[in-house]
Amino acid sequence: MKVFLNWTVGPKDTKDSPVIEEVPAHVPGGAQLDYANFHNWGDYNYGQNARKFDGLEDKYWLYKAKVELPSNVEGKDIFLVAKGIDYEFEIMLNGEVLRYQEGMFTPVEVDITDKIKNGDNIEVLIYPAPKRKGAKTHDREEADQSCKPAVSYGWDWHPYLVVLGIWDEFYIDIREKERIESCELFYKLSEDFSTAFIHFEATSINNGVIEYTIYDKNGEKVISTTESDFELKNPKLWWCNGQGEPYLYSWTARLLNTKSQVHGRVGFRKVELTMNDNDWRAENGTRAYPPMTLTLNGRIIFAKGSNWVNPEIFPGTITRDTYEPLIRLAKEAHMNIFRIWGGAIVNKDCFFELCDEYGIMVWQEFPLACNNYVGTDKYLKVLEQEATSIVKRIRKYACHVLWCGGNELFCSWSRMTDQSLALRLLNKVCYEHDRDKPFIPTSPIMGVSHGYYLFMYPDGKDVFTGIQNKRNTAYTEFGVPSMPSADYLRTFIPEDELFPPEPGGSYEFHHAFYAWNSLDTWISRDILEYYFGQAENLEQLVEQSNWLQKEGLKAIYEEARRQKPFCSMALNWCYNEPWKTAANNSIISYPNIPKPAYYAVANSLRPVLASARIPKFLWFSGEQFIMELWLLNDSPKGYSNFTIKAYIEIAGEEVLLVEWKTGMIPANQNKKGPSVSYLLPNVNTDRIKVKLKCLENDQYSSSYELKYKLLEDAE
Amino acid sequence: MKVFLNWTVGPKDTKDSPVIEEVPAHVPGGAQLDYANFHNWGDYNYGQNARKFDGLEDKYWLYKAKVELPSNVEGKDIFLVAKGIDYEFEIMLNGEVLRYQEGMFTPVEVDITDKIKNGDNIEVLIYPAPKRKGAKTHDREEADQSCKPAVSYGWDWHPYLVVLGIWDEFYIDIREKERIESCELFYKLSEDFSTAFIHFEATSINNGVIEYTIYDKNGEKVISTTESDFELKNPKLWWCNGQGEPYLYSWTARLLNTKSQVHGRVGFRKVELTMNDNDWRAENGTRAYPPMTLTLNGRIIFAKGSNWVNPEIFPGTITRDTYEPLIRLAKEAHMNIFRIWGGAIVNKDCFFELCDEYGIMVWQEFPLACNNYVGTDKYLKVLEQEATSIVKRIRKYACHVLWCGGNELFCSWSRMTDQSLALRLLNKVCYEHDRDKPFIPTSPIMGVSHGYYLFMYPDGKDVFTGIQNKRNTAYTEFGVPSMPSADYLRTFIPEDELFPPEPGGSYEFHHAFYAWNSLDTWISRDILEYYFGQAENLEQLVEQSNWLQKEGLKAIYEEARRQKPFCSMALNWCYNEPWKTAANNSIISYPNIPKPAYYAVANSLRPVLASARIPKFLWFSGEQFIMELWLLNDSPKGYSNFTIKAYIEIAGEEVLLVEWKTGMIPANQNKKGPSVSYLLPNVNTDRIKVKLKCLENDQYSSSYELKYKLLEDAE
Repeated sequence: MKVFLNWTVGPKDTKDSPVIEEVPAHVPGGAQLDYANFHNWGDYNYGQNARKFDGLEDKYWLYKAKVELPSNVEGKDIFLVAKGIDYEFEIMLNGEVLRYQEGMFTPVEVDITDKIKNGDNIEVLIYPAPKRKGAKTHDREEADQSCKPAVSYGWDWHPYLVVLGIWDEFYIDIREKERIESCELFYKLSEDFSTAFIHFEATSINNGVIEYTIYDKNGEKVISTTESDFELKNPKLWWCNGQGEPYLYSWTARLLNTKSQVHGRVGFRKVELTMNDNDWRAENGTRAYPPMTLTLNGRIIFAKGSNWVNPEIFPGTITRDTYEPLIRLAKEAHMNIFRIWGGAIVNKDCFFELCDEYGIMVWQEFPLACNNYVGTDKYLKVLEQEATSIVKRIRKYACHVLWCGGNELFCSWSRMTDQSLALRLLNKVCYEHDRDKPFIPTSPIMGVSHGYYLFMYPDGKDVFTGIQNKRNTAYTEFGVPSMPSADYLRTFIPEDELFPPEPGGSYEFHHAFYAWNSLDTWISRDILEYYFGQAENLEQLVEQSNWLQKEGLKAIYEEARRQKPFCSMALNWCYNEPWKTAANNSIISYPNIPKPAYYAVANSLRPVLASARIPKFLWFSGEQFIMELWLLNDSPKGYSNFTIKAYIEIAGEEVLLVEWKTGMIPANQNKKGPSVSYLLPNVNTDRIKVKLKCLENDQYSSSYELKYKLLEDAE
Repeated sequence: MKVFLNWTVGPKDTKDSPVIEEVPAHVPGGAQLDYANFHNWGDYNYGQNARKFDGLEDKYWLYKAKVELPSNVEGKDIFLVAKGIDYEFEIMLNGEVLRYQEGMFTPVEVDITDKIKNGDNIEVLIYPAPKRKGAKTHDREEADQSCKPAVSYGWDWHPYLVVLGIWDEFYIDIREKERIESCELFYKLSEDFSTAFIHFEATSINNGVIEYTIYDKNGEKVISTTESDFELKNPKLWWCNGQGEPYLYSWTARLLNTKSQVHGRVGFRKVELTMNDNDWRAENGTRAYPPMTLTLNGRIIFAKGSNWVNPEIFPGTITRDTYEPLIRLAKEAHMNIFRIWGGAIVNKDCFFELCDEYGIMVWQEFPLACNNYVGTDKYLKVLEQEATSIVKRIRKYACHVLWCGGNELFCSWSRMTDQSLALRLLNKVCYEHDRDKPFIPTSPIMGVSHGYYLFMYPDGKDVFTGIQNKRNTAYTEFGVPSMPSADYLRTFIPEDELFPPEPGGSYEFHHAFYAWNSLDTWISRDILEYYFGQAENLEQLVEQSNWLQKEGLKAIYEEARRQKPFCSMALNWCYNEPWKTAANNSIISYPNIPKPAYYAVANSLRPVLASARIPKFLWFSGEQFIMELWLLNDSPKGYSNFTIKAYIEIAGEEVLLVEWKTGMIPANQNKKGPSVSYLLPNVNTDRIKVKLKCLENDQYSSSYELKYKLLEDAE
């Protein structure tokens, strides 16, 4: 039985100084957020309100609660349980330190049976946020000797707001004396997947007999035994979205002759990271690119999805209801994978439960990003503790398919290498505790691409051309930014700043200006004006911005799919966002409002679709328009004999360019069709539409909206 | 006190069948070798004698000895110690199994104080050599589920002869009751190398006080203390050959008030594997090549050396006297590193002691080579045991600078990847037990090159051109084969087969034909005839062969040095050989007879030399001869103002081409000089000599001997 507490929290200037002001606290939650709410600072999403938090991360924060036990605790064991406290802290009972810890991902469990009584004081003293001495101020470098997620230290879509607090459940746990103390299910599948060899690892206080029962998804008992090792014949396998059902069994372990029972779920599946298109490159005496093809239950999967970032600035406020709409949207967009970016937190358990249910595979990174995490003894010790806790918590989920050391650690701005002790340690921890799951040290590894993040490349070419010139084993980050809707902008950009957007105020604070490599990131005013000229109002600016994001992401996703099997992954940067941004690469606005690009991406990720390989976005009158027809199929089903009619529509006139009889389309294979060309007329319009109609099934039809200009308007 | 035993050995058909024939045994040694010697089979190097061993590896071999204890064992502890038994075995005392083990690198130590008495029988039953079921017969595949070095299963320079036996010391150890049980010195150097933080890890039986003493190389006491952690100020550092003195301290640990004392040596040095020329390649969105630059005590070292293979077919016959001449030759050739190739054994302790003394760095591979070692539970268990034993034995040597998973594991003929559990395990073991030493999963990794192994590439270009067209971070294998001297060949090729060499007989058995990728490997008859025409006698054939190896290896080594700092390593394949080969890439014939190429390589590896970058080996009359002048310096010293005069000598006539004033040559840097060209005359000769004379110091002068033909002779 869990007994939750009523908490207050307050800042302190030093460890030993008094609390300056005590305010009511939400647990789980965030210390600074409680403080802000008490003082009615208003929505931190609005304007530049979030600046008010500056400096609060340098305080100590003291949480206090009085123990109120239920009446029936006699003869029971009493534990103090904290699932996550951010970041360095002491837990005290009546002033006695029960636990000191650095690290927000390692749960605390302390037996307090002989210590606790009604009216006792429990306190949690949280230390100031870690900042490495000598690091640049207000820079992610401050996080490079800790396991604190770096995103709080500011990113191109996240303010500098270093959160602290009790971010996951904290409770007094009343337990029966005779009980199962821990229980976990492990399994291996036979080579032909016809048998699951199940092993339960359980400990009980009284060493009594435990009965293990497996139930199917309808709750029907499948097998029940008191052996901890047994076989399950013909298990239904767990499949990711688009490849089959994400079948989940449930299980119980009951300590016989007691009331103690433990529950769990299991999805049976085998995951491997295999060589892309068997590309060994032996001939040149060096080695091939490392493997980046996800293989699920022996079947090669084209991994299509997105990069998940923290959905809230304050992770303590995240609940199942935060995750669920976002994960459902991914499923509806035919995605099958999230890369959980290493700059942010490792999500709460309910995230993985939902991904298990929706069939979304999870690539989980450790909390390292864009820094050189030097392997000092102190850092490695905390990292080993935190990584071990993370692995032991996550390994059981069917959705979890890949461990990764962190984000962009082998890049020039981070300068870690294969020899970096932190990454060797993470490989070791994963081997020890979850050896059948693949591990990569970082993304990108050799052969993999991150970027580009604007519609137009530095060389002036657009993303259509850019992606078609690349040959990578996986595109695990790429982006085109956009603005959210005008109505949405009005909820957090003060009226007097709304149009035209200018640097220096709320737009800049919300990442529209100077967020990345130039004044115009992420708003891309320069690129929008190149294609569309000056926008006349906010609505028009937003529409232009969305047009580029929609068509840009479609071009990349579909080209990546066409490059299969040498290419095995396409994940855009990024999926969601932790607060309201005025411009960002996200395809879903905070908290879960799809941008138009979300629907465009969903279209490009349909398992089966007609796809046009168009070499660029902007076309001029008198130019020869060219494209290639493709039929993309990443489903486990084959198809036969589609008829694809390709049309070009310009100024209201629709011209049939070609009719393609596809013939057979094998399972999980694409087919290349004819190339066509068409002389663009001189007409008064601003766009071309390309339509591919599948006569047999309109669900496979596609369309593209391209920019058109009269030749005399060309620069 | 060590008590050695008198052994016999004999084959058995099955585990339980009687010994067929008992013969005297050498320990350490090889079971089949004892058997062969008893039967007077003759030198296995001669002709095809080694074929007689076929099938003996499938027998069980039983070693037997009777215990004879000295008189004064009362009150002492008695241990059975076996440092290495090859490969799967049981040790029995009077029929009772004391130890079963798979693995030749894990020492056995069993307390037999209460069991042993005079006249007892000690037996070692060795199982048949491991051969994976389903593997191709007489192929290295047979070794791919064991930790048995693969070379025994046949290589392009090693017969199929799978050795078994007690290959390292086996003795009864009489120990005082009160003693130091184990003691190892660990240290870290301060960032500026001014302090060594020393830590002794020791266990003693009586928990008594241990006194630790450090002595300098002259045996003078430097520091003495009973603290296990202490600092040594201003330690003299250990440097590899060419960079400074390989300074070694010695130490003792004495258990006070007892006679127990342990000795050791230590060389203080810090080793890192750092990025080559800071090449991060950030701009293209993917990662840079992994680091391959050895950095010793903060100084970048150009690693120049060779690939060491097992110096005997039967490792049990190896002694310090086997190693010493070979290691001395490496030092004399200005080498600073050996790559200990993963196909063969991990050498005995005296190898590392000698490398410590001679300043030869050691790149140590684990026993995996050219196979896919699938990570089955059984294999991983043995590998973890063996790797742990290897790491714990080797880590203490100053010479040891790099761990590597094994040979060519990421290549198409092996098909392991970063995800292979065996390699992830090895990374883990090295992290756990020797974390400050770099680890690479295999050679080649991305950016590194293995090959080519003939003077002429498959595209018809020679090695001069081939290496100049490459850009690799490290050349860790490359070769040009040659024949040994005619006199040497006469010692093992029967007279009637000597000339001309033909496939099918002893030449082929000794790797002159069909050894690698064609009929003519390694003799290279085809290539020799292209340059020189048909040889008239054995001496002439050998001379031609040596000419190509000499000039070919010089061309590669010097070009690799010119490609510094992007390139950081040059190690030819291979240094030595385990038996008499009739043609091989080795530069030293078995057991330690330098080929002419050895001296050529030594010349190219001088710390400072004038070097000519010549684009090809074969020149024709009327052609414009071109070359670039360089001054190579990989010494820690700078030089100033050399005068290099470049001459071409043709048909006895010497022409001065250019005089180059080098100016300053900074420490550890090369300098590029002028390019020159010269119209080759039409004269009657078969060669050109290029001479670079350094006027200030003739030790830096160089010369090259190139092939010359009249244009009308061109094919």
